[in-house]
Formats: sequence, C-alpha cells, structure tokens
Amino acid sequence: MTAPHTAIRVSEIFGPTIQGEGMLIGLPTVFVRTGGCDYRCSWCDSLYAVDSRFRHEWEMMSTDALWQKVVALSGGRPVMVSLSGGNPAIQPLGALLDRGHRDGYRFALETQGSVARNWFAELDVLVLSPKPPSSEMATDWAAFDACVEAARGRPQIALKLVVFDDTDYAYARDAAARYPRLPVYLQPGNHTPPRPGDENAPIDMNGVMKRMEWLVEEVTRDRWFDARVLPQLHVLLWGNKRGV
Amino acid sequence: MTAPHTAIRVSEIFGPTIQGEGMLIGLPTVFVRTGGCDYRCSWCDSLYAVDSRFRHEWEMMSTDALWQKVVALSGGRPVMVSLSGGNPAIQPLGALLDRGHRDGYRFALETQGSVARNWFAELDVLVLSPKPPSSEMATDWAAFDACVEAARGRPQIALKLVVFDDTDYAYARDAAARYPRLPVYLQPGNHTPPRPGDENAPIDMNGVMKRMEWLVEEVTRDRWFDARVLPQLHVLLWGNKRGV
Repeated sequence: MTAPHTAIRVSEIFGPTIQGEGMLIGLPTVFVRTGGCDYRCSWCDSLYAVDSRFRHEWEMMSTDALWQKVVALSGGRPVMVSLSGGNPAIQPLGALLDRGHRDGYRFALETQGSVARNWFAELDVLVLSPKPPSSEMATDWAAFDACVEAARGRPQIALKLVVFDDTDYAYARDAAARYPRLPVYLQPGNHTPPRPGDENAPIDMNGVMKRMEWLVEEVTRDRWFDARVLPQLHVLLWGNKRGV
Repeated sequence: MTAPHTAIRVSEIFGPTIQGEGMLIGLPTVFVRTGGCDYRCSWCDSLYAVDSRFRHEWEMMSTDALWQKVVALSGGRPVMVSLSGGNPAIQPLGALLDRGHRDGYRFALETQGSVARNWFAELDVLVLSPKPPSSEMATDWAAFDACVEAARGRPQIALKLVVFDDTDYAYARDAAARYPRLPVYLQPGNHTPPRPGDENAPIDMNGVMKRMEWLVEEVTRDRWFDARVLPQLHVLLWGNKRGV
C-alpha cells in the first residue's frame, strides 16, 4: 500500500519522444506529467493535468510503480525524464530522483517557480517558467527566488518565458534582467491550446508561426543576443496531439 | 589594398537572425557565408556559395572590411557569428577570430571536416558535419580526425548529421560511434533545396516533416537517447528564402 504522503499524483506518462521546447529541445525524453496545479493560466495547454474536473483521469502512484513504468518505456536504458504538470513541485518527487539516478537516468523539472523544494538540488535540469501577464497569474518573486536558491547551484537552470504580446515581452525582459546569469529561452504562445478531450481541435499554426517571426524581430531589434527563441516543436510536428 | 592571401571570399553576410539548426538553434546570430567548397553534395542547399558559376556574386573582402560589416549589422553589440559556406575552412579566417574576440564576439564555424586549420582552436563552437552517402561525397576520416585534433579541446565541438534515409542513418550511427564524447545533432534532409536565383521555388514541407517524424521514430526505437533530433527551423519558418 502506498503511504498517502509519498504517493505521486500522475496525469500521464509517455515517451520516449523528443523534447519539443527549451533548453533540451530535440532530446529523447520520457515525460511524467503530474496532476494538479496552484495556477490556472488563461492559455494553459495541459488543462487535463491541472483542473480537478479531470482528477478521475489521474492516478496516485508509488515511487516504485512510477519508476517501473519509466523503465519499461525506456527499455531500461537511461534517458532524460521530464517532470512536468500541472506543477510537479507540489508532488513528493525526491525519492523518484534518488531511484532514477541509481539507474543512471537524468531528470529535468519544469515549474512556474511558485513552490520551492529541497529536492530541486538533486535535479539535473531545472526549467523555471514564470508566467507572463497574459496568463492572468501574478508572479511571487520571493517564491521564485526561493526556487533558485533551493537548487543550490547544482542543476543547470534555465528561464523559459512564453510570450504572446508586447506586455509579455516586457515581462520577459524584466524576468531575464532579474537573473542575469540564467540562460533565457523565449517561446511564442499558442492561442489555440488543446481542449481536453478534443486533441484534434484545429490549431492556429499560422498564428503561432507569425508570433514566432515577430518574436525573432523583437529580440534582434533589441539586440537581445543571449536569448534563444524557439517554438514548440511538437506543436509544429504533431499539432495538439497528446502522447507524442 | 587587400593582400590576396589574407582576403576572404564572401558569398553573403546577413543577420542578426536566429540560428535555425543544431547546437545553437534559436540563438541570434550574424551569418558570414563564404564562397567556394571542396565538396559538391547532391542536395546542397547553398549552391550559390559553392558552385563557381556564382563567383560573380562573391566578394573578396579584407578582414577589416568584413568585420566592419558584422559590427554594423549587430550595432556593435557582441553576438554569435556563424561562419559557414561553402566550406569556410578553405578561407583565411584566423585574423577575423582575433579581431572579433577583441570586440567580445563569439564564433561558430560549420564545416564538413575535410580541411583542418590551426585556427580551429580559436573558435568558440566547431560544428563538424560529415556528409552521409546520399550526398554522393566520400568522407576522409583521417582528414576529419585532423579537424578534431586541430581544435585542441578548446571550442565546444558537435557533430551534425543530415539524414535522408536508412543508409544515411546507419552512417550517422557509425560517425557518432567514432566520436563517443561529441554531442550529436541529427537533421532531416530537405529534398527540395533552393535553386539559385529562385528562392520562392516550392519546398516539400510535408516531406521534411515526415522525414523528421521518421527520424524521431528511428532514434527512439534504437534507444539512441543522447542524440538530438532537430529540423531546420528557418526552413519551417521561412521556406527557402535567403537572408533571414
């Protein structure tokens, strides 16, 4: 029986497929998406892992059971494991990191930076993705600072900023200026995220591409030469389809 | 007057725009494309910088003149400079690296690895892109080894492998196995490269995407978990258009 305080709330586990975003773009990865989030971003692209209306699709898993699934998907061969959500920082993932590292796997965690955990220091990669104004969420920079501090300089840390418009872009510049030593990845937002249960809903690819072009223009015009601009590759390849 | 032995044969200089390929994907970059190549790849996407039929479009530039153009494009703000071609290794670029480094710029060079230069050790990034069988070129691995040795462990080195088919994929696996410590970037080939003078020629985007999906399937099926698979982002964004 799984002790409640060590069980992990899981929305989906899939892969390996390539990472579609940010610092690890293109790298084969097994994705563990946890259920539940302290945020409700207006344009959330993973509502099925956020909104408790979908909790019947979530599963409480022990560290062992979760790890067995990752090992099965990867054929026992060490691969990058991406911990995302929802907000995976609200799950008890410390034991999973220990277990996976013993088998030679690596872990990247992606979070908005609202909840800090001691086990952030055990990650290989920590992607902090503060949410811009278009999300309708407010950033608690003290909590965000605590996340950076919890990492204790051990994982690689990157900032990933989703940008929909000028206001988001100004927010991204401010966020980057707060953490001048962290590499920055900018990502054009998708105004047509999947609707839960309808992964074939049309995606405004033209809009995503236009926003990407605009973002490249902004960055080069401002001579922001240490930012990277990357689209969501999986959206370009597979639209809003899940599990690829 | 430019001494002939120090003049650089330039096909085009443009940017900043984002790097569309490989290790530096998404990074704002000024591109210096040199003219002339010791290879004639069947699917070359830069024939206008390779084939001497286009030499009337090339310009012999002094290091100073070339550098002034890079500084003007970047507004004097240090940016990554990509040296590509053609084969930039057949140009005298050592003085350019010294000059640019004094101004705080960084340099990435991309070459097939057929010609080694002492100044490879002064690069920040060296992308070695051996050409697979579909190119109809043969790889001289002794010359390639000499390129790795010339870098003397100083720049970051990455292997970039274009893959069109199963034979190319097998070649990529062999090339990666030869250099187990070098990071590998796999890139689906474009069967519809630009025809010089006709940059609006239709591109088989569906074919590129299908080849990308196939490559992701191969890599994950083989559990080649330290390779990265990345498309040419600029082709997805801008087709075969030049200068973006």
